[in-house]
Amino acid sequence: MKARAAVAWEAKKPLSIEEIEVMGPREGEVLLRTVASGVCHTDAFTLSGDDPEGSFPCVLGHEGGCEVVELGPGVKNLSVGDHVIPLYIPECGECEYCKSTETNLCQSIAGTVWTGYMPDGTRRFSKDGKDIFHYMGCSTFSEYTVVPEIALAKINKAAPLDKVCLLGCGVTTGIGAVLNTAKVKPGSTVAVFGLGGIGLSCIQGAVMAGAERIIGIDINPDKFEFAKQLGATDFVNPNEIDGSFVEYMQDTYNGGPDYSFECIGNTHVMRDALECTHMGWGVSTVIGVAGAGQTIETRPFNLVVGRTWKGTAFGGVKGRTELPGYVDRYMNGSIELDSLVTHTMPLEDINTAFDLMHEGKSIRSVIIF
Amino acid sequence: MKARAAVAWEAKKPLSIEEIEVMGPREGEVLLRTVASGVCHTDAFTLSGDDPEGSFPCVLGHEGGCEVVELGPGVKNLSVGDHVIPLYIPECGECEYCKSTETNLCQSIAGTVWTGYMPDGTRRFSKDGKDIFHYMGCSTFSEYTVVPEIALAKINKAAPLDKVCLLGCGVTTGIGAVLNTAKVKPGSTVAVFGLGGIGLSCIQGAVMAGAERIIGIDINPDKFEFAKQLGATDFVNPNEIDGSFVEYMQDTYNGGPDYSFECIGNTHVMRDALECTHMGWGVSTVIGVAGAGQTIETRPFNLVVGRTWKGTAFGGVKGRTELPGYVDRYMNGSIELDSLVTHTMPLEDINTAFDLMHEGKSIRSVIIF
Repeated sequence: MKARAAVAWEAKKPLSIEEIEVMGPREGEVLLRTVASGVCHTDAFTLSGDDPEGSFPCVLGHEGGCEVVELGPGVKNLSVGDHVIPLYIPECGECEYCKSTETNLCQSIAGTVWTGYMPDGTRRFSKDGKDIFHYMGCSTFSEYTVVPEIALAKINKAAPLDKVCLLGCGVTTGIGAVLNTAKVKPGSTVAVFGLGGIGLSCIQGAVMAGAERIIGIDINPDKFEFAKQLGATDFVNPNEIDGSFVEYMQDTYNGGPDYSFECIGNTHVMRDALECTHMGWGVSTVIGVAGAGQTIETRPFNLVVGRTWKGTAFGGVKGRTELPGYVDRYMNGSIELDSLVTHTMPLEDINTAFDLMHEGKSIRSVIIF
Repeated sequence: MKARAAVAWEAKKPLSIEEIEVMGPREGEVLLRTVASGVCHTDAFTLSGDDPEGSFPCVLGHEGGCEVVELGPGVKNLSVGDHVIPLYIPECGECEYCKSTETNLCQSIAGTVWTGYMPDGTRRFSKDGKDIFHYMGCSTFSEYTVVPEIALAKINKAAPLDKVCLLGCGVTTGIGAVLNTAKVKPGSTVAVFGLGGIGLSCIQGAVMAGAERIIGIDINPDKFEFAKQLGATDFVNPNEIDGSFVEYMQDTYNGGPDYSFECIGNTHVMRDALECTHMGWGVSTVIGVAGAGQTIETRPFNLVVGRTWKGTAFGGVKGRTELPGYVDRYMNGSIELDSLVTHTMPLEDINTAFDLMHEGKSIRSVIIF
């Protein structure tokens, strides 16, 4: 079938709106109509060419709100018309990782999902006979897309897809990092580095966890007002600090925050985020995606004195099991999404969404198909 | 009073057996007679001159088994004749750290203990009018030493001091790292890097935790036999592996060990120890002390996919609260110490203990006063 899609023909170039061919779903696969899709920094990261796993041409997009259009053979638990959020980390329910309570990193199709192919090693997108790569198993910048059933979270049909699409990546990652990965305790002090969509969602998570002080950290103070609305209590602009940032944090916050979250992808910030935490029990969680080959570094003494360095992908959330509950929490008002959607636009204006992101003017832009 | 002591006059020189002056205990302090003292790698590290906190001349030694000889004013809970193990990490019971269940890093006298001074900023050791530094608050290479009450664990008087002295550092550190810091779960796979006194104690801890596979890793295969006696089930000599050590560990051990412990102090090994652990839930704990200024490094992706990097000091054990229980566990046979004491010698032969350690011929030498 035909579909309108934003195609990334090559790195560093604007997306091109095209009519592409989408093949029907094969065994275990589902054809989806994309109703809405958020535009995430990870899309921009891949488009920048710095992502070693980026393959072009491709259809980017991985924060989708979709409707089931057609089921491939063997699809068991979905029906046409169901509302779903595609998952870049699937949940097969059967692998060693799915059976562990410690991780959400289902490995059932990990061998293909990051390569731009479907699990059977083929692709469903093409243009004039030229195959186009999938992206993160989602490719939600296309009006129609094909995703394996094990990578689809079925959600409450009453939920607005143009809002809950954000639960497909950033918001869930931030909240999950706080609740699942760091397991923030009530009464604690939390520092959030970088107040984009993920950082703001960490703040939401910290509020949900009952943190007492929530410190928003950004070099762009325009971000502070919105962070405050979501529950941040303190604000630090590192550019305004003379001397050591780590010492400032420890002096100002009673030995340093109990927890920190790096939501930028800057390896220097990752080090500061670890080292500023409280001796004895500080836990720092890496969320941001660093450039290819970059490393993080610290003196081992910083761990020996009781700090813990962790990381998280999709907030440790098992998508099919947990994501429906996140949607319900949005519906009952305990997760805020509406105000995170600062801009909406049709697919034709998608490059504007990237521009707004790079200029720091948007929290999230949502493409409405 | 006079005491025989092994004095480190300067870095990189053998210790010198001297008759030194030991002043009596002041407020809150206790005069101890050292009955036995283990010789630990940390003593050698400081003596090497690489320890930025090393101050000379000093009396080294921090694995002591001692008897209380005299109480200073204000000592509340000890009596003359009590048997004690000096603690390089005290437990005042009152500071923020002591009140936390997350850490053992009592900060009550941290400002002085690592500088070689007593809490009041003075010293109790001298020779011919020249003051001599304390070491780690213990200085158990002296026949008599002075230690604050808050840094003394009172233990079962029936316990042989020439064995339980090892609980003052290495053995407790290794066992505590497994039980308190990493919290190893039953049935898991544990890798221990470096089979000296601490590594062997990690193996004991892993057995106590119910680990199923316990992998001893050392470039000296002579260490494997003893590790096996203590409960190790598998052995790896990294020098015998062609290609990537990390890949070898992951291929051989079903994705990699669930837990790893670095007991050497080598920052490259620390990286391997982290990276070889199982994706999704691997926990690596740094125990070894690295050289001044050295850093550990990894790609943040290794954390993002679910690994955790931690560290531990004295195994996270709160000394006055927990150490008496460790002594009891030795007495009832659940902690092995006797076979770890491969050599004993009088104070006069202490330099031999350092030689044996550097040659890899001893697990622990114990000085019998």
